Amino acid sequence: MSIRIASFELVDLRFPTSADLSGSDAMNADPDYSAAYVVIRSGDGAEGHGFVFTIGRGNDVVLSAIHALEHLVLGLDLDETFADMGAFYRRLVHDSHLRWLGPEKGVMHMAIGAVVNAVWDLYAKREGKPLWKVLADFTPEQIVDLIDFRYLSDALTRDDALAILTAAVDGKQEREQQLLDKGYPGYTTSAGWLGYSDEKVARLVGEAIADGFTHLKIKVGADPADDVHRVRMVRELAGPDVLISVDANQRWDVAEAIENVRRLADADLYWVEEPTSPDDVIGHRAIAEAIHPIRVATGEHVANRVVFKQLMATGAIDICQIDACRVAGVNENIAILLLAAKFGVPVCPHAGGVGLCEVVQHLSMFDFLAISGSTEGRWIEYVDHLHEHFADPVHIRGGHYMPPRKPGSGAEIVPSTRAAYRFPDGPIWTEPR
Amino acid sequence: MSIRIASFELVDLRFPTSADLSGSDAMNADPDYSAAYVVIRSGDGAEGHGFVFTIGRGNDVVLSAIHALEHLVLGLDLDETFADMGAFYRRLVHDSHLRWLGPEKGVMHMAIGAVVNAVWDLYAKREGKPLWKVLADFTPEQIVDLIDFRYLSDALTRDDALAILTAAVDGKQEREQQLLDKGYPGYTTSAGWLGYSDEKVARLVGEAIADGFTHLKIKVGADPADDVHRVRMVRELAGPDVLISVDANQRWDVAEAIENVRRLADADLYWVEEPTSPDDVIGHRAIAEAIHPIRVATGEHVANRVVFKQLMATGAIDICQIDACRVAGVNENIAILLLAAKFGVPVCPHAGGVGLCEVVQHLSMFDFLAISGSTEGRWIEYVDHLHEHFADPVHIRGGHYMPPRKPGSGAEIVPSTRAAYRFPDGPIWTEPR
Repeated sequence: MSIRIASFELVDLRFPTSADLSGSDAMNADPDYSAAYVVIRSGDGAEGHGFVFTIGRGNDVVLSAIHALEHLVLGLDLDETFADMGAFYRRLVHDSHLRWLGPEKGVMHMAIGAVVNAVWDLYAKREGKPLWKVLADFTPEQIVDLIDFRYLSDALTRDDALAILTAAVDGKQEREQQLLDKGYPGYTTSAGWLGYSDEKVARLVGEAIADGFTHLKIKVGADPADDVHRVRMVRELAGPDVLISVDANQRWDVAEAIENVRRLADADLYWVEEPTSPDDVIGHRAIAEAIHPIRVATGEHVANRVVFKQLMATGAIDICQIDACRVAGVNENIAILLLAAKFGVPVCPHAGGVGLCEVVQHLSMFDFLAISGSTEGRWIEYVDHLHEHFADPVHIRGGHYMPPRKPGSGAEIVPSTRAAYRFPDGPIWTEPR
Repeated sequence: MSIRIASFELVDLRFPTSADLSGSDAMNADPDYSAAYVVIRSGDGAEGHGFVFTIGRGNDVVLSAIHALEHLVLGLDLDETFADMGAFYRRLVHDSHLRWLGPEKGVMHMAIGAVVNAVWDLYAKREGKPLWKVLADFTPEQIVDLIDFRYLSDALTRDDALAILTAAVDGKQEREQQLLDKGYPGYTTSAGWLGYSDEKVARLVGEAIADGFTHLKIKVGADPADDVHRVRMVRELAGPDVLISVDANQRWDVAEAIENVRRLADADLYWVEEPTSPDDVIGHRAIAEAIHPIRVATGEHVANRVVFKQLMATGAIDICQIDACRVAGVNENIAILLLAAKFGVPVCPHAGGVGLCEVVQHLSMFDFLAISGSTEGRWIEYVDHLHEHFADPVHIRGGHYMPPRKPGSGAEIVPSTRAAYRFPDGPIWTEPR
């Protein structure tokens, strides 16, 4: 009996995070962390969960885009879909009417990512494995079949990708054991939000180091003098052996970025994240040349693999920050991981928000096992926030992400939260605080 | 008495153009030309009209994004808004929650463009002038105040822009007279859609030349052998003095584009449009270097001024094809016109679709009067399709766009069409064909 995809359930989930300034940065003063959430159910009652992370208003626009994808997905046979997840992904990305709304960027592309990821969640649950393990168990040929090489062939061909994946087969089992024993390194942003007082930052820096983190990230970009104060304070608190990176959240123009980073250079920075517009390949390259050896990082707002290709092929970034919910899901992120391997750029995912840690860890773990083969100079972002809402919350031990053991992609939010935080009619939004 | 913005009326307008393959190209086989349409009304009953052009499915997603902007616009005082249209535009673009959904790209950004353009329509109607004339009558200082220089300052500063605009003040009146007398040059794509038979193409090429057009554009990209056949046929029909450009609608990778254009080179091509992904600055530069002296053109899908900045500053394109409905409206397009002037790149707008000709002509005419000061090597795309639905349809004479005389931006679709083509409940969609 053929089992088919039977329904989409859409949920507008919003968390009132603006109340305490968690997540505040130079561009985003008052975010209400939100998820445009989809549950895809098959005829046998199995569920796949996926979402787009947003910061509040406009979450409904993303849901409208997810709804626009239903007709491409409902009625598909599960076995046929799972047998060619590359074709499934291309089916969504290549719909010409919907492609016009990007192409391959913004609301429509993020919505495709949520649907693609939800189907991967369903797939992994059916296999009875966490997603990182599903992907790591694929052959190199199965992996390259997931990728859309359109617009990549001047930088990464199918043969290039096969060669990278084949070279990483050796040692995969040993790395899996290492991953299960020690986990994957994380870094933390929990201490460094702009809305926090010096006292709160100092307390949180101490806690992060006590928890085993060796790499901290601080938000900058609102006021240059305040940035110098804050970054120096963190360097003094943390001592010389802890890595410190800063994140400007796209606040600067190119010359401003160079000038402001130079002011902070005596704090021995590891990377500068989002110094300017994520669309500005040429600008990032100019910044990277000017501030070397401080590294340039970006990616959480990079629209798609075509922009990542340029950023990496031209040496415009030193650190590639994939995001689980910005591009068209697992498939496009695997293409980006392979581009990073081709150009020798370490991948340090963006996380935090709602559920980004839970989902993106699978991609870094897969990268370690099957692509880059290394965790050196690589960390997954960690923010200690909102994990309690997930069916399989991240497990951090000594500053490391311990690999998930439960089947699925990590995206599933528990039913009680899906009811309580539903906007605008859940009790969190209707009852007096 | 203060007059305020009082309401948004949203209309999902779709035209069943897929029935006859008008508008078919290598990426878009069956478009139903559509408009995510907004009427913004002020308290005194005046109306401003704006829209996003789409090709069918997903038009509702754009309407959802326009709806998400209402709270930023309703209640604004008209006089205050009109006194600082730069601030109005930045108010929409800088909303941090909605910016997350791009940033500055895709559905949300296009929706901002529709709202910005609708308010410009209201402004121009209140001034009793066509939009081109409103803008041409601004001082250089007023023009630069419309622009958001964020992310542009490494290529175009406020002083650069002022210098360009000030230099163009001289001769503006003479150019306006020339515009009124002779119009602005157009080129036509009407003959070259992929879905048309050879016989239909031949007939339409003859008609276009008889109508006074000296520059024709042909769609390519579906099949290389067919492209060679079609382009050679058009060159033979048109003779050596007519300019012929081709449009690949993003169908190729970089190496493919170079190879396929070289096969067509004996037809003496003027430009190759959208050879590859509109996000690929580096790829366009490689193509431009390889196919020189054939020009590279792109822009109808270029997401924003930051990508245009890179395309022009690096010599990746020879022709800048602004679109009235892709970026954040009149304001961002003026920034792009100024970037083009700075880098000496002629602007040849994308048009066609629904109403793109009606709206974008105002920007080219303004460019001629107040920025570039020239029509040399510049043409506005023309497609003879769907103009009858507009309150002030384009007027073409001898292959030239004659300047609109009626007040407004050109965006207004007549009420009978807004009723008949409303999706899914207008009679065009509910009554048997």
